[in-house]
Amino acid sequence: MIAVNWGTSNFRAFRIDAKGNLEAEKTSSTGALSVPPCEFLDALMAEVGDWISAGEKKILMSGMVGARQGWKEAPYVSVPATLGQVAGGVVPLQIDCLDARIVPGVIGADEYGIPEVMRGEETEIFGCDSEGACHSCLCLPGTHTKWVRMEDARIAGFTTCMTGDLYKAIREGSILRSFAGQDLIDDATFLLGVAHSRQAGALAHHLFGVRTLVLTARIDESSASSYLSGLLIGHEVKTMAREGESVHLIGDAALCSLYARALAEFDVQTSVEPAGADLRGLTRIAGRLSW
Amino acid sequence: MIAVNWGTSNFRAFRIDAKGNLEAEKTSSTGALSVPPCEFLDALMAEVGDWISAGEKKILMSGMVGARQGWKEAPYVSVPATLGQVAGGVVPLQIDCLDARIVPGVIGADEYGIPEVMRGEETEIFGCDSEGACHSCLCLPGTHTKWVRMEDARIAGFTTCMTGDLYKAIREGSILRSFAGQDLIDDATFLLGVAHSRQAGALAHHLFGVRTLVLTARIDESSASSYLSGLLIGHEVKTMAREGESVHLIGDAALCSLYARALAEFDVQTSVEPAGADLRGLTRIAGRLSW
Repeated sequence: MIAVNWGTSNFRAFRIDAKGNLEAEKTSSTGALSVPPCEFLDALMAEVGDWISAGEKKILMSGMVGARQGWKEAPYVSVPATLGQVAGGVVPLQIDCLDARIVPGVIGADEYGIPEVMRGEETEIFGCDSEGACHSCLCLPGTHTKWVRMEDARIAGFTTCMTGDLYKAIREGSILRSFAGQDLIDDATFLLGVAHSRQAGALAHHLFGVRTLVLTARIDESSASSYLSGLLIGHEVKTMAREGESVHLIGDAALCSLYARALAEFDVQTSVEPAGADLRGLTRIAGRLSW
Repeated sequence: MIAVNWGTSNFRAFRIDAKGNLEAEKTSSTGALSVPPCEFLDALMAEVGDWISAGEKKILMSGMVGARQGWKEAPYVSVPATLGQVAGGVVPLQIDCLDARIVPGVIGADEYGIPEVMRGEETEIFGCDSEGACHSCLCLPGTHTKWVRMEDARIAGFTTCMTGDLYKAIREGSILRSFAGQDLIDDATFLLGVAHSRQAGALAHHLFGVRTLVLTARIDESSASSYLSGLLIGHEVKTMAREGESVHLIGDAALCSLYARALAEFDVQTSVEPAGADLRGLTRIAGRLSW
């Protein structure tokens, strides 16, 4: 079969043999939200047409490909959500002779009733190998970081912080764009940003400090993006982390490492999920379906 | 003389006769940061060359035109700063036969020692006509909103929140760009955003609510920018306003009105400075100089 993690801005496909072994893997930057509505089949063929030609007919996809503005909407499953309930919400997609299916997202609400949604992260969550991941606080850092409370192997509730999205928007569109363009993360300046995030005051105030600290030569222009990253992740972590609780991180290794360093400043212990949670989750969901 | 308020993104010039009366006024979108370093004289001539040809030689300018990346740097005056100290920091600019001068900005620090800077707002502050403005909390809403504590007609200290800049960056560069493009401000949805800003949680979390409330049809897409504006201004106001204190607002009438509505939700009374504080401030500073 072919398993696909098709998110907002990335495409990742796995070819899996009958015994469940990974045969091949492909990644590209063809995000689901960059594909026009009628061109998803073409986009899929462009990526994995050779595997399909070689006989693969079963395709399971997770992520924004199942959003309203994606290929076909796979309606959200409500929290609390088990692996079985997510598998039960998988939506078939008629395309020629392929048996393609899309994993649903999960919907919940924060403590004030503001809706919360995820698409793709549920698959990574159920792909966790780590012991104890089914009874803990998970964090999936990214464009829209998810903080997930697990209870009895269910997604009990979750909170989104669009920290990565804000980081990008600020670096591209605000006054900080002229000196926060560096990609390298300088550890000490990142931690200075985390420390300053703990001070009283609005994020919009702390952000102006990026400009004034550079202007007064107290931080180097080349470290401005590190400081900005520390401020933003710090503001998130200080509201989300509970002292004494440990957090299990899932996702990109560099980003998980940044979150782990920020969380350590708040005396929160962390563990990191080995790579491949998306593939493991897709395989487990596929195993629950009748093909 | 000619008085010029030359900010980051706007140019505003006033022609004043010998008795101090306003003879003419011009505005354009030639912001100081959009002018290449060597082209400031050309840009000025393009705007007010006719007044200069008609005999005006004295020009006083305030705002980002005096920044390091502006026409000529006018070094910051430190808080606490009086009108006299700001006038004392005015920097001359040699250009042909013109007697041009630039008003300095003001520099301070927040309670944690993070530097604070303003350029242009000091001129508006000293242009305040309102009684009591010299002993109160002033707020100048804008791209980089300033909250200013006045003591004995001095700028005692101030705090910047880059709320307007963040609003623009989020609407242009984040996932919210696809449905927060409307410019009209819907009052009820703006106030809903202000109310939600009071809930616990990071701004980055509340921002994701813009998306999910639209996704679940709890707010209309056409009101998303109003909700976003309420969230951002609410996050600022909740950290800056002190219950029972009144705030004097200076600046664009529509923006002052939004801040007044948000502040009212926090039981803070407001007054609004009549238009023209920049002109009045420039005139007062000019009156302190030997020409």
